[in-house]
Amino acid sequence: MRNPLSDKVMQLKPSGIRRFFDLVSEMKDVISLGVGEPDFDTPWHIREEGIYAFESGRTFYTSNAGLKDLRIEICNYLQRRQGIEYDPLSEVIVTVGGSEAIDIALRTLLNTGDEVIIPQPSYVSYEPCTILAGGKPVIINLKSKNEFRLTAEELENAVSDRSKVLILPYPNNPTGSIMEKTDLETIASIVKKHDLYVISDEIYSELTYKGRHVSAASLDGMKERTILINGFSKSYAMTGWRLGYACGSDEIIKQMIKIHQYAIMCAPTISQYAAVDALKNSDKDVEIMRNSYNQRRRFLMNAFKEMGLECFEPYGAFYVFPCIKEFGMTCEEFAERLLKEEKVAAVPGTAFGESGEGYLRISYAYSFDKLKIAMVRLKNFITKLRNCDTY
Amino acid sequence: MRNPLSDKVMQLKPSGIRRFFDLVSEMKDVISLGVGEPDFDTPWHIREEGIYAFESGRTFYTSNAGLKDLRIEICNYLQRRQGIEYDPLSEVIVTVGGSEAIDIALRTLLNTGDEVIIPQPSYVSYEPCTILAGGKPVIINLKSKNEFRLTAEELENAVSDRSKVLILPYPNNPTGSIMEKTDLETIASIVKKHDLYVISDEIYSELTYKGRHVSAASLDGMKERTILINGFSKSYAMTGWRLGYACGSDEIIKQMIKIHQYAIMCAPTISQYAAVDALKNSDKDVEIMRNSYNQRRRFLMNAFKEMGLECFEPYGAFYVFPCIKEFGMTCEEFAERLLKEEKVAAVPGTAFGESGEGYLRISYAYSFDKLKIAMVRLKNFITKLRNCDTY
Repeated sequence: MRNPLSDKVMQLKPSGIRRFFDLVSEMKDVISLGVGEPDFDTPWHIREEGIYAFESGRTFYTSNAGLKDLRIEICNYLQRRQGIEYDPLSEVIVTVGGSEAIDIALRTLLNTGDEVIIPQPSYVSYEPCTILAGGKPVIINLKSKNEFRLTAEELENAVSDRSKVLILPYPNNPTGSIMEKTDLETIASIVKKHDLYVISDEIYSELTYKGRHVSAASLDGMKERTILINGFSKSYAMTGWRLGYACGSDEIIKQMIKIHQYAIMCAPTISQYAAVDALKNSDKDVEIMRNSYNQRRRFLMNAFKEMGLECFEPYGAFYVFPCIKEFGMTCEEFAERLLKEEKVAAVPGTAFGESGEGYLRISYAYSFDKLKIAMVRLKNFITKLRNCDTY
Repeated sequence: MRNPLSDKVMQLKPSGIRRFFDLVSEMKDVISLGVGEPDFDTPWHIREEGIYAFESGRTFYTSNAGLKDLRIEICNYLQRRQGIEYDPLSEVIVTVGGSEAIDIALRTLLNTGDEVIIPQPSYVSYEPCTILAGGKPVIINLKSKNEFRLTAEELENAVSDRSKVLILPYPNNPTGSIMEKTDLETIASIVKKHDLYVISDEIYSELTYKGRHVSAASLDGMKERTILINGFSKSYAMTGWRLGYACGSDEIIKQMIKIHQYAIMCAPTISQYAAVDALKNSDKDVEIMRNSYNQRRRFLMNAFKEMGLECFEPYGAFYVFPCIKEFGMTCEEFAERLLKEEKVAAVPGTAFGESGEGYLRISYAYSFDKLKIAMVRLKNFITKLRNCDTY
């Protein structure tokens, strides 16, 4: 029998997060600070909407683009929170999480060989989805000294005459870094100068701890060249519901709907009904969760300070990204020893790109109880390392 | 601004079904026999499982491949119903409906230029998903005289040295045609001779009215070259839940999981929990729905006979595919006039490929009351056409 597999799929590396969790799953009594998922259950009133939808027999397909009521509420939300106006009838598509939106955005935009500029460390799917769509990933290695923000100079250096798309992954997973309005303005001018399109992955937009999130799409002349991607997983603790959305020009969204229609049909119906309620009635829930994440964030920053562990202060998402370079080992070694010797799981920075070397991603979407124990263990571990002559 | 759109996405035609329903949505009092979706609500005990999952806070991600319990039940089901054995740990992936499974199967198998043999009339997504994955669709125009079954001769004529994949869309949407074991055996020998892979879309497998469905994967030497695709939408009336699966060799499924992980993450969690119950406890529900579809099918066949409308007897899915060639107009014209003059919506056969010309797809996933009124109207329409000198 001949080889069944395509060259592209063989090019994809397995996810580094996955490899690490296979290790974790074999061990007992581990405190995991590893998963990129809220620890909160979905707020009860949203689940009640889901239950009501089941009781009412809302178990049929919706239109390909998503329930009209949901698209209207998405537009209301983006207008209310970020001052961006989209037409619910032609500029929005409801997707299976932010993940599908990223995938079909790239499939819509890319011809073979088109370059996609991907700042790293960042979420694990941009590079493989680019390769699958026939594009060529061009990686920018973000710098700790810039708090992992993308700078104009870095972007300018990455642009070539094959560049077509820039991924803007802020608030950032895994660094927790954000881009403020002035940061985005310098980026926007280069994007316009080189006639690029932007895929702005704003899935953590509600989780910022220094002013309100600013979308690239809200800047002058950027709406028409930006595909804004967001969803319900992180802000509303709705990961398992698999619901996200993309907004952009009608020209682009129309083609994304075509792919979505053939490859997916529609997003889950029950999730769509519940999400209408989430957008209308959950500002308070989101605020409570945000405050809770913020407390934990400050607790961790303080704990790192006390144990002398270098970490820039991140203002977004629910991750901190401490530097472990002083210990003279790779982050994979560090994470593996931390797991085996102290039973704390944190993800090696390299799972998110080579420029993550020397860092750990620690998620604070975990209870204070767990975070406290984990910080004691982490302190033990680094104290032990420091007290050895050789690590 | 430059053109944002990829050549591939521009090649995709908009769905013919969609165009037709845009027309329907503008009209009042139409009886639609157009949608490919069960008219039953999801059985209550399955919805109860969904409700229980919400109450229990099962709103988190599952593993990429899907809940282990669900994969085990899928394997039990396929063993019990079709005598095929799959390993739940390595040979099954849970997807967002059958649609995603088709898409990621093609993305896993195809290099640029690989040919995919697609018998038509058939479901609208095979051709666009092939193009998006870089493949070249090679269409077989199935013949009414063969009851739209695929013949060995047709397949042999379509094979070239670039052929890699054969799509087997049975029980068939839109014709209602099935492939029996002897039909499949002649196909299997050609598949093996030319070292092809098969994507067998068996989403209607529970809806057959002449013996039990036979899967291509159950034939000698075919399991390792078949990706079996099925799901919950049609058999269990769970369209809006967006849940399907693919089974195949561990080599292929492993790569499909990689794409799925990056592009989708996981199928909806609540749907997965409910589907465990569906597979364990719904044989009786499926039988009741199947019997109900069968009654309607026989009612339609009888009505066609009475009005002298030519139609081969279909034994699968919930579609009949009558021939309207005697009226000397295209099926688009016929469908449009039937809609405007008699307010009955049925889909022109050409929505499913050029070889659908001269036919209408009529779904019988509608109540007897609706089917009865629709048949009166259809009879009026064709009587009127026959009584005119010129149509």
